[in-house]
Amino acid sequence: MHAQAMIATHPDVQGATNESLIRCIEACYDCAQACISCADACIGEPMVAELKTCIRLNLDCADVCTAAGAVASRRTASNERVIEMLLDTCAEACRLCGDECGRHAARHEHCRICAETCQACERACRDAARSVRSSKH
Amino acid sequence: MHAQAMIATHPDVQGATNESLIRCIEACYDCAQACISCADACIGEPMVAELKTCIRLNLDCADVCTAAGAVASRRTASNERVIEMLLDTCAEACRLCGDECGRHAARHEHCRICAETCQACERACRDAARSVRSSKH
Amino acid sequence: MHAQAMIATHPDVQGATNESLIRCIEACYDCAQACISCADACIGEPMVAELKTCIRLNLDCADVCTAAGAVASRRTASNERVIEMLLDTCAEACRLCGDECGRHAARHEHCRICAETCQACERACRDAARSVRSSKH
Amino acid sequence: MHAQAMIATHPDVQGATNESLIRCIEACYDCAQACISCADACIGEPMVAELKTCIRLNLDCADVCTAAGAVASRRTASNERVIEMLLDTCAEACRLCGDECGRHAARHEHCRICAETCQACERACRDAARSVRSSKH
Repeated sequence: MHAQAMIATHPDVQGATNESLIRCIEACYDCAQACISCADACIGEPMVAELKTCIRLNLDCADVCTAAGAVASRRTASNERVIEMLLDTCAEACRLCGDECGRHAARHEHCRICAETCQACERACRDAARSVRSSKH
Repeated sequence: MHAQAMIATHPDVQGATNESLIRCIEACYDCAQACISCADACIGEPMVAELKTCIRLNLDCADVCTAAGAVASRRTASNERVIEMLLDTCAEACRLCGDECGRHAARHEHCRICAETCQACERACRDAARSVRSSKH
Repeated sequence: MHAQAMIATHPDVQGATNESLIRCIEACYDCAQACISCADACIGEPMVAELKTCIRLNLDCADVCTAAGAVASRRTASNERVIEMLLDTCAEACRLCGDECGRHAARHEHCRICAETCQACERACRDAARSVRSSKH
Repeated sequence: MHAQAMIATHPDVQGATNESLIRCIEACYDCAQACISCADACIGEPMVAELKTCIRLNLDCADVCTAAGAVASRRTASNERVIEMLLDTCAEACRLCGDECGRHAARHEHCRICAETCQACERACRDAARSVRSSKH
């Protein structure tokens, strides 16, 4: 992704990027794609009926990650309160989806990979939320 | 919108819809469209440079509303914690965007209408979040 | 929705709205919500394994409708070629999803309502695409 | 991104991935993020009024890329006609946005990087659309 290069050239940023926020943006897009794929793969499994909770959490997680990746990409003016709350929500969506995918990881490789992607995104969101909070003081 | 009819026919709902959640879904889609339109109209104004904050809050609000409308529409399994946090985030995005649009309401009719739409969506999100919280007890 | 009021107040529109485009924007948001709901209701059905194609077409249709509703809402500068192609794509996504939902309409009320919503959105997209094409001449 | 690993483990794919489709999915998410960033950076520029067309094309391109990345990620059942049309639309959105960003590349580094990202995504969409078309015969 070009998130680092794009944000570094924003007129108000001029190279002084928040690295944890950029890692979070990349993690959110990665996780959105993985959750869309995992929901789709679950729907294609013969035992789809046992994967209902997983599919639902995947779809919710993808929607929240897509919104978080977009909102965290913006640097014009400021909207820190919304970024913080959205990153906290995204971390929670990733935690719950990662836990549920983890329950199916032994049987479904797509759930195993998606669980890891969710966990990585959860960590990235928590780090970025912390950096946004600390930069306000 | 058909949100009421669609959710009422979900196999786990069977007519017992949460009315405040359905009003919230409709308000989120309405507000997403209004914020996309308002950002676009602001970009088209001769004084666009004075509307930077408004455009940024509009774009963020549209992204959060779109995600909230989708997540609040799902009734399979449950994801109450994420719904609650996302509705709280959406209420905050609407509050801040509505306040900023309100500052330009006297000069720009699109900002005036968008401010009202944001305020209505903020109320709908707070009501729905309250109903989700109370249904957990 | 406030699509009509919002677009009518755009500085380059000033009241001269394209009515078929506005009906299309509203139909796209309505259809996006209905398809998200129908996919979710299908996932909650005991016979979910028979509804795989329906779920997949619902999710695709929701994504295309969401994008079409946003792109068709913008009036600053112009992007007619993309609007036309996206409305044609959306009409096709709605046609295929409406047909598939129609096959399950007798057994699932959510599929029946979603099929009608898709068909209405298909018509609205075709009308709007035609109006965009004719306005170029 | 984990698109390759996720799609390779889909029950209907089982390792036989379409490489050009996977490169396209990654390019779409990359381009969506770059266009959101470029619109935001343009809004933050002192000469924002000269960048209206660029901002509008960026926002449209981001919406189409986000939808294309999602739809192209699904492998359950099939929806080739919609994928093809959406990839063609996305290629066109990227071409027009890349051309416009290219006009501002000498003055704005974010436009230069975004133009390249759009051109790469256009090529990836055209390759993937060709591979979807040829796989139908």
